[in-house]
Amino acid sequence: MVAAEVSGKLRQTGDAKADKIINTIRFLAVDAVEKANSGHPGLPMGMAPLAYVLYDKVMKYNPKNPLFPMRDRFVLSAGHGSMLVYALLHMFGYDSVTIDDIKQFRQANSKTPGHPENFMTPGVEITTGPLGQGICNAIGLAAAEAHLAATFNKPDCEVVNNYTYCILGDGCMMEGLQSEAASLAGHWGLGKLIAFYDDNSISIDGRTSIAFSEDVGKRYEAYGWQVLYVKEGNTDIIGMEKAIAEAKLCTDKPTLVIVTTLIGYGSPNKADSYAAHGAALGKDEVAATREALDWEYPPFEVPQDVLSHTRRKIAEGAKLEEEFAKKCEEYKSKYPEDYKLFETMVLKNDLPSGWEDALKKAAQETGAMATRQVSQVMLNALAPVLPGLVGGSADLASSNLTIMKGYGDFLKGQYECRNFRFGVREHAMGAIANGLALYNAGLIPYNATFFIFTDYQRGAIRMAALSEINNMFVTTHDSIFLGEDGPTHQPIEHLASFRAMPNLYMMRPADATEAAAMYAIAVKTRKTPSVMAYTRQGTSKLDATYEQASKGAYVLSDNSGGKPEAILIGTGSEVDLCIAAAEALRAEGKKVSVVSMPCWEVFEEQSAEYKESVLPSSVPMSKRMVCEAGSSFGWTKYAGVFACIDGFGASAPIKDLREMFGFTEAAVTAKAKSMF
Amino acid sequence: MVAAEVSGKLRQTGDAKADKIINTIRFLAVDAVEKANSGHPGLPMGMAPLAYVLYDKVMKYNPKNPLFPMRDRFVLSAGHGSMLVYALLHMFGYDSVTIDDIKQFRQANSKTPGHPENFMTPGVEITTGPLGQGICNAIGLAAAEAHLAATFNKPDCEVVNNYTYCILGDGCMMEGLQSEAASLAGHWGLGKLIAFYDDNSISIDGRTSIAFSEDVGKRYEAYGWQVLYVKEGNTDIIGMEKAIAEAKLCTDKPTLVIVTTLIGYGSPNKADSYAAHGAALGKDEVAATREALDWEYPPFEVPQDVLSHTRRKIAEGAKLEEEFAKKCEEYKSKYPEDYKLFETMVLKNDLPSGWEDALKKAAQETGAMATRQVSQVMLNALAPVLPGLVGGSADLASSNLTIMKGYGDFLKGQYECRNFRFGVREHAMGAIANGLALYNAGLIPYNATFFIFTDYQRGAIRMAALSEINNMFVTTHDSIFLGEDGPTHQPIEHLASFRAMPNLYMMRPADATEAAAMYAIAVKTRKTPSVMAYTRQGTSKLDATYEQASKGAYVLSDNSGGKPEAILIGTGSEVDLCIAAAEALRAEGKKVSVVSMPCWEVFEEQSAEYKESVLPSSVPMSKRMVCEAGSSFGWTKYAGVFACIDGFGASAPIKDLREMFGFTEAAVTAKAKSMF
Repeated sequence: MVAAEVSGKLRQTGDAKADKIINTIRFLAVDAVEKANSGHPGLPMGMAPLAYVLYDKVMKYNPKNPLFPMRDRFVLSAGHGSMLVYALLHMFGYDSVTIDDIKQFRQANSKTPGHPENFMTPGVEITTGPLGQGICNAIGLAAAEAHLAATFNKPDCEVVNNYTYCILGDGCMMEGLQSEAASLAGHWGLGKLIAFYDDNSISIDGRTSIAFSEDVGKRYEAYGWQVLYVKEGNTDIIGMEKAIAEAKLCTDKPTLVIVTTLIGYGSPNKADSYAAHGAALGKDEVAATREALDWEYPPFEVPQDVLSHTRRKIAEGAKLEEEFAKKCEEYKSKYPEDYKLFETMVLKNDLPSGWEDALKKAAQETGAMATRQVSQVMLNALAPVLPGLVGGSADLASSNLTIMKGYGDFLKGQYECRNFRFGVREHAMGAIANGLALYNAGLIPYNATFFIFTDYQRGAIRMAALSEINNMFVTTHDSIFLGEDGPTHQPIEHLASFRAMPNLYMMRPADATEAAAMYAIAVKTRKTPSVMAYTRQGTSKLDATYEQASKGAYVLSDNSGGKPEAILIGTGSEVDLCIAAAEALRAEGKKVSVVSMPCWEVFEEQSAEYKESVLPSSVPMSKRMVCEAGSSFGWTKYAGVFACIDGFGASAPIKDLREMFGFTEAAVTAKAKSMF
Repeated sequence: MVAAEVSGKLRQTGDAKADKIINTIRFLAVDAVEKANSGHPGLPMGMAPLAYVLYDKVMKYNPKNPLFPMRDRFVLSAGHGSMLVYALLHMFGYDSVTIDDIKQFRQANSKTPGHPENFMTPGVEITTGPLGQGICNAIGLAAAEAHLAATFNKPDCEVVNNYTYCILGDGCMMEGLQSEAASLAGHWGLGKLIAFYDDNSISIDGRTSIAFSEDVGKRYEAYGWQVLYVKEGNTDIIGMEKAIAEAKLCTDKPTLVIVTTLIGYGSPNKADSYAAHGAALGKDEVAATREALDWEYPPFEVPQDVLSHTRRKIAEGAKLEEEFAKKCEEYKSKYPEDYKLFETMVLKNDLPSGWEDALKKAAQETGAMATRQVSQVMLNALAPVLPGLVGGSADLASSNLTIMKGYGDFLKGQYECRNFRFGVREHAMGAIANGLALYNAGLIPYNATFFIFTDYQRGAIRMAALSEINNMFVTTHDSIFLGEDGPTHQPIEHLASFRAMPNLYMMRPADATEAAAMYAIAVKTRKTPSVMAYTRQGTSKLDATYEQASKGAYVLSDNSGGKPEAILIGTGSEVDLCIAAAEALRAEGKKVSVVSMPCWEVFEEQSAEYKESVLPSSVPMSKRMVCEAGSSFGWTKYAGVFACIDGFGASAPIKDLREMFGFTEAAVTAKAKSMF
């Protein structure tokens, strides 16, 4: 790319019709950002030619049904370029983005927020913005397709078949989770994933050469990808089509197409500079850009001939939908049994009926054990009744106990298998699992690591919460009681940190009954992710019912007939200590209730009456004690006395840790007695 | 590597003396893990030959002074192999690890915790365990050396000169932060960094081929590293020495030596399998390993001839120290001015005197502006008086406003410069900055991103807190009021999540006075990191003193003479709203105090009397309101009424966000009035 191109009338594709469509995309972005006086014009201007090729020539989709199951998926990992997506959705016939919506870019409650949000705008597959997440999500989408194709397709009848396209920029290319995910995608050989690297050499701080001089193509080859180049990314639409065709021919590797562009192509004075990245071009520069690209239309006008061309996709989409319906009919008649599941999962994005019974049964049959073992029981109870359950661990399967036995490893050549082996890649794991869910075809993903390593995947967890993704973050080794591995591995503040996160269930079940109830809630909710924390060490089985546990918090025992003098609140492995302390207090004639609280958020969803029955307001904070092997932070909401740990742990056997940090029956009982 | 080697008597290095030392290392590890019945024998067994080469033949250090300034640094990024380090420290003459300490491996309060902890064991440079952190820290150590060498060395007198060595395993190699950091190290051309990849093809879930098939060497070449290979890593110590020599010859690139080994080398039945990774070998296998390696000594016996050989390092270390002292004298006489700073920073790891005055002055001179601008003022006030201040942003320098003007960019060929350009690599940035601090030579690092992206670097922040590292995590765009970028970029739970983390200051100053006081505390504390949150939008200048602000929380205004009916607590940009609400209440005759609370943790360090004066216990929770544009989570500790935001934000201009989420003067005042 030479900046010299950016003077006078610019070289364009050589195809006047294409130029007109491409420039429509560019100016919708330029003008929307200008009106909002906020946003990122540079990416849409540079990527408009590729976007045109994808939406006009390559991708299959049905604008009138954004959820058409066999649509090709498109993910803008560089989410700041959101106007690219909104321009495309508008031009190619989606109802979700009108021209008025584009005029409302970045305004309150608009369909066109600053970054693409899947929950705001039909046609946006994925919420992107935090860099690197989108490419991981795209890999998850491609893995979902591979899995469902292997599961449902038959030699004579193929019902699952789509490509996943993703655009990522320099920012995404620097992020570590992108590296993790790309390594996995290469390992898995996801041939129907085609990613485009918008190689424009500009990021917020200026030329990327200031901080980024690696050979990206060589790196992706090292991961096992096919790497192709389009050197003239501002003009060479034929080269783009060829590259995509070549990518499709390579069926056992994902493809990265490195597309060299000028950011802000068309802007005479700001192209190829950070000035085009994240701010409106300004009135004069917008005019100069119109001049340079020979664009005669006023802001927000989509030329009629452009629109009649692009909106042909409405009819094409209807046809695709029709063909797919026929294919489904054929499948139904040939494979009626398979079709039932296909219909539930892929067509309805639903769960088979009756699955919850398996959890209730497992709860009854499972005795005292470490809750990580309980979790293993629950996952394996669910596996046969929830065919959409897929997931795995970040190289800790044998510690997290998250293998679904008998369901094989998802690997190249065996995509029908349901156990994923993510390697030591927590962040990408979380984000890829988000992508599995966002394929919206009945997949219920889980992903596992030690509770402490949620620190590495917090970006993905938050995106799950914000994007309303049903993803289960199953974690084990949930407290200092993991023992000798010491403070680098011992969570302290983690429970609090997730309880503070919006739209997330932080679950810490104490036994099989609670774990079953929590898994049921985690599976049932389709719009809220869960973080689950399970113990390494053994715990008791409590005397509670599934219905009680399903309330998030409940009175486990009470010798006061509902009028306790004091309440002992415990979670997970510390409920046992509360029981012991309560017995000691009761032996002294005190009226004490024990509350087990596996999930704050579920408890808060209950009726005011129920909540009052569990935590009667007559009991003052000074008579409510919490015992939890984690930070006391936040517990002031429910209690005033804390048997918690607010500093870092230590490397020692569990017995010694109990002594050192006050988690013996004696210490907890003494603290409970101090309330009287 | 062929497993067939592991039968009968094993092939060793061919150098009987070396074998004896190497096997001493191996059996200290094997026997310590066996006694603890917990730990990771596999790595020390496989890496013992390389460790021998490093500690016996290559590295310069002074066992009797673990902080000898010009020591070569060694980082075991694969921290689970901690027994390797403890064996080396013991054998090569450090006082910190006695044989009794080794017998106490993984026991309470021992010098030999499960993972290496810098704050427990002199000679351990860095706390490692969470995978990938160590290699980033090592890159920070190498960058520190490059910077200090460029700053202090003269053509005729070189006072700074050491290498940094790092061992990383398959786990580290899969982690994304490692990729980020390696890309930067290549970009920076850190020629004195030599990393060894223990390529043993085994991780916890079995053979790495299940999840990891990339070409690591090719990937590192893509980053701009020199990549060398030692194919027979269990035996070829000559090859290792040659590789290190070759690495040293390459002065403009870091070197990765890929050392192919068998995990658990020597164990006939467990080598080359995950069984050797993370558990004691078991009595029979320990015996079989003794047999295979021809090891006749009982547990914990270090043969006398081994010890007399390895402990020669004590004399060599004393000599190194002596030579260095001479070199310092020479430097002092030739460059007395430079020496003063060199002595303060490098020799004493101290701060020059008087630096705090610059902050006080800046506080007085700086008026109302966005607190990110205030932060810029403070950094630039500190830069000339704190020559050890180094840092930068993850490609957001122009938004974070973190450039120290006139101090240039730290890049290949200009290592004396103090502004780091980290690219879009938040996690590596945090961990590299941790390494800069851990060089222990007066460097005060800061690193910057948007507050939301602390989600990406949380692993590094926690390691800073645990490892007692003085690192300043400077963040901006600290609330929904960043505006149009929307909820993907708007922090909600982040303040709470850091307040819950042990040994961390979470600072949210409201103006220049508070920011100056907070920066002073952040610089002064040498064992506690800070996360600072600054606004994008403008704020007022408060009527407060530096001394008040230094308390962490203080009464900004009070019309009650110390006996308020109600308290309004604010932080950062919301203090303004509290002031407005207080004025409205006072106009109605109410006695109200306004408390500004830039830092909970600093406030909690104050005397009980002071705390009572700020938050008198006579004011019930129902008459204490907090206004903060973040989650209310945790604030129940101080208040009972909340003008906070507990859900996700939205993409809109700031004015609309204020209306949508109740952060107008009218809304906050109404909420304050509702307390009466």
